[in-house]
Amino acid sequence: MAEAKATNITWHGGTVARADREKVLGQRGATIWLTGLSASGKSTVAVAAEAELVKRGRLAYVLDGDNVRHGLNKNLGFSPEDRTENIRRIGEVAKLFTDSGVIVFTSFISPYRADRDQVRELFEDGDFVEVFIDADVATCEERDPKGLYKKARAGEIPEFTGISAPYEAPEKPELVVPTKGVSVEESVALLVGYLEEKGFLASPQG
Amino acid sequence: MAEAKATNITWHGGTVARADREKVLGQRGATIWLTGLSASGKSTVAVAAEAELVKRGRLAYVLDGDNVRHGLNKNLGFSPEDRTENIRRIGEVAKLFTDSGVIVFTSFISPYRADRDQVRELFEDGDFVEVFIDADVATCEERDPKGLYKKARAGEIPEFTGISAPYEAPEKPELVVPTKGVSVEESVALLVGYLEEKGFLASPQG
Repeated sequence: MAEAKATNITWHGGTVARADREKVLGQRGATIWLTGLSASGKSTVAVAAEAELVKRGRLAYVLDGDNVRHGLNKNLGFSPEDRTENIRRIGEVAKLFTDSGVIVFTSFISPYRADRDQVRELFEDGDFVEVFIDADVATCEERDPKGLYKKARAGEIPEFTGISAPYEAPEKPELVVPTKGVSVEESVALLVGYLEEKGFLASPQG
Repeated sequence: MAEAKATNITWHGGTVARADREKVLGQRGATIWLTGLSASGKSTVAVAAEAELVKRGRLAYVLDGDNVRHGLNKNLGFSPEDRTENIRRIGEVAKLFTDSGVIVFTSFISPYRADRDQVRELFEDGDFVEVFIDADVATCEERDPKGLYKKARAGEIPEFTGISAPYEAPEKPELVVPTKGVSVEESVALLVGYLEEKGFLASPQG
């Protein structure tokens, strides 16, 4: 009977659990939430960590302004409500990736503690890893690869995080990754080492 | 110099391209967009196809009402604008999954041709596979596993697709999967066979 067969109940192929996907991948899905000032090195660390994991045969993916702001969140502006919705959607998408088994690095300033905490609440314990990419304003302003700090100082960019808008550093991040006075390789080794130590790079069933 | 090292330019670990992730997975990322009436069998086929792929050591994931409507799209209702935004966001998320290398099955009625076509436009050729899950209203109404058709006939659900709101069947879907008079196994074999034939289940570099 087609009608019975067309419900989940009589399908004997079984359904797939997150652990089954993780077994295929040999890793645990996770959201590695990088937060820090503009030019703190979030994207650099995210992209390099992704490369390191893929080199090891793991599946990692970076969510950043490039692939989110111009796509999913292109209908959001920079009002307080829109910034909060921006982070909320990124959190929900990261949760989907985590459930799929992917290790996803999110690379967004995400300056407000409340927004980040709301994202954390979406996740099961251990699925969400908050990483503070630690470089102070002076350091970031000195780097200023896109000239944004200069524009912010000139008043051309209103409410620029660290200059004219607050950055609320995490109080209890899972990990702090400094990017001042250390090489990218060192920063990435710290992050990937953490993931390895916590068991993210091995299949949940061993 | 920390400032130079903190830009992408001097990172020698290399960046990762989609093809690198696909090589790790041994598959091509894709969005398999299932469209059809309520109770046509979309979720059954999606879940069973996911199980079949994971059994084969591939990475597949299902986006459906359960994990999208209560998360990413929980702030959307059922007005025409919200329905369009619902499908748009799902399309953007599916695109991210596709870019990550995952084969993602989306299981949503998505009754409007214009909405589906807009999603298709987001993708590169070959990344988007529209699959019409073909069961007519009479068949779906006979199945009615959640009693929704009954409620719709009683006027308790306004604008119910197929009863009081239109369903615009795809004109040129990549694939038509019937679910009437065939077993779930047969429907899934048709879908997975298509993916195999088109090279989605092999690494892009062979």
